[in-house]
Amino acid sequence: MAIAELEAASMNSANPRTSATMKAMVYHGPGRCGWEDKPRPVIQEPGDAIVRITTSTICGTDLHILKGDLPAVTDGRILGHEGIGVVEQVGTGVSEFHVGDKVIISCVTACLKCDFCRKAMYSHCRHGGWILGNTIDGTQAEYVRIPQADGSLYHFPANGDEESLVMLCDILPTGFECGVLNGQVKPGDSVAIVGAGPVGLAVLLTAQFYSPSAIFIIDLDAKRLAVAKKFGATTLINSTGGNAAQQVMELTAGAGVDVAIEAVGLPATFAICQAIVAAGGRIANVGIHGKPVELHLEKLWDRNISLTTRLVDTVTTPMLLKIVRSGKLQPSKLVTHRFAMNDIMKAYDTFGNAAKEGALTVVLTNGSPR
Amino acid sequence: MAIAELEAASMNSANPRTSATMKAMVYHGPGRCGWEDKPRPVIQEPGDAIVRITTSTICGTDLHILKGDLPAVTDGRILGHEGIGVVEQVGTGVSEFHVGDKVIISCVTACLKCDFCRKAMYSHCRHGGWILGNTIDGTQAEYVRIPQADGSLYHFPANGDEESLVMLCDILPTGFECGVLNGQVKPGDSVAIVGAGPVGLAVLLTAQFYSPSAIFIIDLDAKRLAVAKKFGATTLINSTGGNAAQQVMELTAGAGVDVAIEAVGLPATFAICQAIVAAGGRIANVGIHGKPVELHLEKLWDRNISLTTRLVDTVTTPMLLKIVRSGKLQPSKLVTHRFAMNDIMKAYDTFGNAAKEGALTVVLTNGSPR
Amino acid sequence: MAIAELEAASMNSANPRTSATMKAMVYHGPGRCGWEDKPRPVIQEPGDAIVRITTSTICGTDLHILKGDLPAVTDGRILGHEGIGVVEQVGTGVSEFHVGDKVIISCVTACLKCDFCRKAMYSHCRHGGWILGNTIDGTQAEYVRIPQADGSLYHFPANGDEESLVMLCDILPTGFECGVLNGQVKPGDSVAIVGAGPVGLAVLLTAQFYSPSAIFIIDLDAKRLAVAKKFGATTLINSTGGNAAQQVMELTAGAGVDVAIEAVGLPATFAICQAIVAAGGRIANVGIHGKPVELHLEKLWDRNISLTTRLVDTVTTPMLLKIVRSGKLQPSKLVTHRFAMNDIMKAYDTFGNAAKEGALTVVLTNGSPR
Amino acid sequence: MAIAELEAASMNSANPRTSATMKAMVYHGPGRCGWEDKPRPVIQEPGDAIVRITTSTICGTDLHILKGDLPAVTDGRILGHEGIGVVEQVGTGVSEFHVGDKVIISCVTACLKCDFCRKAMYSHCRHGGWILGNTIDGTQAEYVRIPQADGSLYHFPANGDEESLVMLCDILPTGFECGVLNGQVKPGDSVAIVGAGPVGLAVLLTAQFYSPSAIFIIDLDAKRLAVAKKFGATTLINSTGGNAAQQVMELTAGAGVDVAIEAVGLPATFAICQAIVAAGGRIANVGIHGKPVELHLEKLWDRNISLTTRLVDTVTTPMLLKIVRSGKLQPSKLVTHRFAMNDIMKAYDTFGNAAKEGALTVVLTNGSPR
Repeated sequence: MAIAELEAASMNSANPRTSATMKAMVYHGPGRCGWEDKPRPVIQEPGDAIVRITTSTICGTDLHILKGDLPAVTDGRILGHEGIGVVEQVGTGVSEFHVGDKVIISCVTACLKCDFCRKAMYSHCRHGGWILGNTIDGTQAEYVRIPQADGSLYHFPANGDEESLVMLCDILPTGFECGVLNGQVKPGDSVAIVGAGPVGLAVLLTAQFYSPSAIFIIDLDAKRLAVAKKFGATTLINSTGGNAAQQVMELTAGAGVDVAIEAVGLPATFAICQAIVAAGGRIANVGIHGKPVELHLEKLWDRNISLTTRLVDTVTTPMLLKIVRSGKLQPSKLVTHRFAMNDIMKAYDTFGNAAKEGALTVVLTNGSPR
Repeated sequence: MAIAELEAASMNSANPRTSATMKAMVYHGPGRCGWEDKPRPVIQEPGDAIVRITTSTICGTDLHILKGDLPAVTDGRILGHEGIGVVEQVGTGVSEFHVGDKVIISCVTACLKCDFCRKAMYSHCRHGGWILGNTIDGTQAEYVRIPQADGSLYHFPANGDEESLVMLCDILPTGFECGVLNGQVKPGDSVAIVGAGPVGLAVLLTAQFYSPSAIFIIDLDAKRLAVAKKFGATTLINSTGGNAAQQVMELTAGAGVDVAIEAVGLPATFAICQAIVAAGGRIANVGIHGKPVELHLEKLWDRNISLTTRLVDTVTTPMLLKIVRSGKLQPSKLVTHRFAMNDIMKAYDTFGNAAKEGALTVVLTNGSPR
Repeated sequence: MAIAELEAASMNSANPRTSATMKAMVYHGPGRCGWEDKPRPVIQEPGDAIVRITTSTICGTDLHILKGDLPAVTDGRILGHEGIGVVEQVGTGVSEFHVGDKVIISCVTACLKCDFCRKAMYSHCRHGGWILGNTIDGTQAEYVRIPQADGSLYHFPANGDEESLVMLCDILPTGFECGVLNGQVKPGDSVAIVGAGPVGLAVLLTAQFYSPSAIFIIDLDAKRLAVAKKFGATTLINSTGGNAAQQVMELTAGAGVDVAIEAVGLPATFAICQAIVAAGGRIANVGIHGKPVELHLEKLWDRNISLTTRLVDTVTTPMLLKIVRSGKLQPSKLVTHRFAMNDIMKAYDTFGNAAKEGALTVVLTNGSPR
Repeated sequence: MAIAELEAASMNSANPRTSATMKAMVYHGPGRCGWEDKPRPVIQEPGDAIVRITTSTICGTDLHILKGDLPAVTDGRILGHEGIGVVEQVGTGVSEFHVGDKVIISCVTACLKCDFCRKAMYSHCRHGGWILGNTIDGTQAEYVRIPQADGSLYHFPANGDEESLVMLCDILPTGFECGVLNGQVKPGDSVAIVGAGPVGLAVLLTAQFYSPSAIFIIDLDAKRLAVAKKFGATTLINSTGGNAAQQVMELTAGAGVDVAIEAVGLPATFAICQAIVAAGGRIANVGIHGKPVELHLEKLWDRNISLTTRLVDTVTTPMLLKIVRSGKLQPSKLVTHRFAMNDIMKAYDTFGNAAKEGALTVVLTNGSPR
């Protein structure tokens, strides 16, 4: 069936142009990418929507892709799995979104129908999961095709702030679901977050939904620790000296913390979590790991701990939206730099040198930055 | 204060003899032990009870102690942390038990008052935990002193069977709490138990409280697997060929199991659990580990799994008692050999050669075996 | 758009006839109904499927409809919300089912996309819920249109038994979700089920997934109590004398039961639940109530109880399917009478006089009864 | 045994006087009470402690007692079940507290040993529960005997504020456990609290531990509503017009609230909760009810709600202590009036005319008020 027919079938197209090109951030193998012309995406399946991107951002994972760490991402792929935009076109199977709707794009695509989606494990959706900017073209572009749109888009609230809400595409649900929910943070708990990068800070912001009495944050970078202080951390631990675990144990009178959250992805930082978790405590892994770690079961077998892993499911997006709207969470705190989408190569440079640039997250806008 | 005075203070002594000796299984360092004369224990604290042992048993941990694996156990220690008996004497602070009460002795001593006991983590009780036959004298004797008696004894039910109920001192709550509860076994789940020794079989029996649809059991020993079949396992996996994980994955069409329970305590068996746990699944560790294991976070970080460790808390003893009384659990299935307590050295020989002897658990009775 | 075009669009039709009639059980207002000719249903929305019914059954709710108790059901409605069948046609938005698939029809229609479906509350689906045989035509017919087919059908397992699995459309998930799950039945619990009708028996069968130590069942009908005994009840309470609550309290030494499950829907039976629930216990309401009840908060305010209501969500259908397939549940136990669908009027007579006929559930088959 | 001997046995007495008198608030039947001389309490059981009261308060329940609503309270009883003080003497069975320890007295006495205490239902302790100022003498006095001291006292933290922490004896755990925990308040939830009296305000303060997005508070008294606004309520509903439920439904676009918390204890306020609870929501009852209420099961049977009752267990006292110490909760906000204990009759007057006096809670100190 020709594209024109498909579009006719969709009966909802607001935009008659079908073969126009667009600009997009295209990956060409390790170290090579560019802001290039690409064909505008079209509806391929009944569940698809085409979204015109207004705001996007860059994730740490995108840097890994550029280094070549994720071989599933192949030459020609448009990067990006986060974005805010406006629905331009919907397939015949889409019922919850209409042309003109402003939407938040989830980094995880969910069919809602498979066994995993039924268990609220959208991350493992049999027809989706994390595919945007990975196995299909992504959001760092002027337009993106969103499969399974009904399960993968969220309505942008009236009077919402794009810069804040683009943080709900990935980083905030990641910190909240993988770190805070899996760590079962409870009122009065002591929590340690290992890593004060953007994801660690997302954990920090969302952990406070549950009123822990103490939040330790551990990092090598004094500047990031200073930011963490402003974001609500109660104790800063500089791990430069290699004795972070010892410091936490001393500050907790040898008890350790109720919840230790790993937000880096290295054996050394995971080791800190094992060393500081209290008997009966939880270790919640958020970091992406490239190698095995040593698990000290000879010390932990009788400590009644739990250890969890998770790829974000984005099932808490509606909850996070409510909290943002109530004013209890200001995600734009995480934004330090703003670029026009056309300047995405500069944005990558800045984000790639985050420590030097003092960058947390960078926001990209189609049109001029605010 | 003299012993006689202490006993007078207790006001409850049924037995006027105070300085009599008794027989007990005494440890004298690696490889050395004997059934010897020891002074009968006396009340030392207001919360103590003296129990005359009628039935005891031997735990795999006792074999480890005899090998010298637990240096906390020192020369002269009476072994044993499981037993049924009759209360002979109680301290002034004991309110729930009286002289003449028949009791089940928990392997874990619980003060009920400390922060850990308040959280139902009796295993980490600040005044107790696993101390019997470890840091204080134990139950493989004619008499034993039970500190924190109100938290550490349970009333033996009318018409109960000693042989069955001595399994509630340690092995059944261990299998149930560390394996089944921590593994969150649910109706319809697929469960794999790695290890068909006594503890693995205790997991098998108690997992069935929750009606899983499939229970795989993995062991090197065909005889133990045959027992597991009789106890309700639905699929037997002989791991002799080194491809147990592969077999489980094939039988589950590549999905793996909802719950993988480690009941051995070795890196190799823990590795099997990691290889077979389904996305979204749980690994519950029951085995006692002597060395670190390799945790494949590079594979598991995005698999949404949980991994738990636990020293048995024995908080489920009242629940298990109800189930035994209802007839839904026959713990005496686990008993293969019976000895008079006087023949405890033979009992240790048999239990120490469990594979050759076809032994699961051995029961010791003061008086003649039934 | 003509029906023919719609069918062409569906591209999946196995059956070229479009305007054929069929037989169906049609409601015409209180007391009036018949097995009549009706047009065969056709695809109306992309998410629809047309299912040829092979097996159906009659629910107690259908009797209420016939009496006129549910005014939402209007003249001309085809009754029935349970069925097994074969997919004849699917809309373009259906992805999980194909023509020729054998399916179990859920009594609850679920879009999977709305806020309630996302919370696993399919009963309150904004595009579905209980609509079959209620606000749209139902399953007591030769064919039925199933909207939101991907969320409302389940694959019939290879070698499944239709008579057993038609019990999964409504009655078993109702008993399990509203009674057992909401009642939080745990191993060792004491459970009382008020009402030994089909739904009460479904509670009884599924409560046993969690190994309670005692199950009291309360009914006026000695024959139903006898059936309950065979199905696993441990104590039968005949409530004819009006002292059912007193009997339960005596049998529990004044403590009451951990879980009291109301499976009738009357003030008097709800009163029994209030009178027998233990401190810390749960009352789970399953019955459909037509009037308010008196809640004795003056007695219950300090008893730490919970009370739940629920319209079945059918979210446990996949779990129940696994358990049926494992052999741990034989739903066909609930079937006492079998009819050809053509004899549905006789089936209604029998089911309408259940007590006299000794009927639990009746099964209807298109073709001859087995 | 003479009192002197009992005291000698306790071996810990810091105060040699045994037959001294003290002042206390004594009840003499409906409407009659006074600040009178009474004998100082002495150790009666090994688990007892004698506490010298430094700070106490008056509870709404005390007003009910004075009216004669609680016939269990008999002539001569010393009232009061809340207090801060210093341990003067301990029985031989007390292990966690020593003479000179500053303590918080829980309104609920817990043996920690019985089946209810083991389930963390201290409210139903077989040797305790709410007995202070009820079936035994209470805390509105210079000294009080605390039975089961190890389970019923909490260590007063260094640098703690007595006025704040006396709120942890009853009112804050009551609001938190019965309202917030039973209501399962979650981040982003909408919560309605019916009643802005002291207990309703305690619910309001502690609900914020979980970051709900909206908190409606409903009361007849504009002054109390104004206080609620300062304490964090997001929407004030004056119920004077009788249309509070309608207002909530309009403000929630007909959906109702996730959690409705009853903090009054009347049929009319309970009716509001039923009218405003959303499908899938929770009604948590905190109020003390004197009569039955009408439960609209004809409307609620299919709404998937839960309804809970609870007498405070004070199991969250350690958690609340941690939160107070972290600065996230300032319980002294609830204190509006302060009196010397000698002026307790005036304090009762003020508290008994709370609306007129603008009183929330009154604090009593032995010594001069601060």
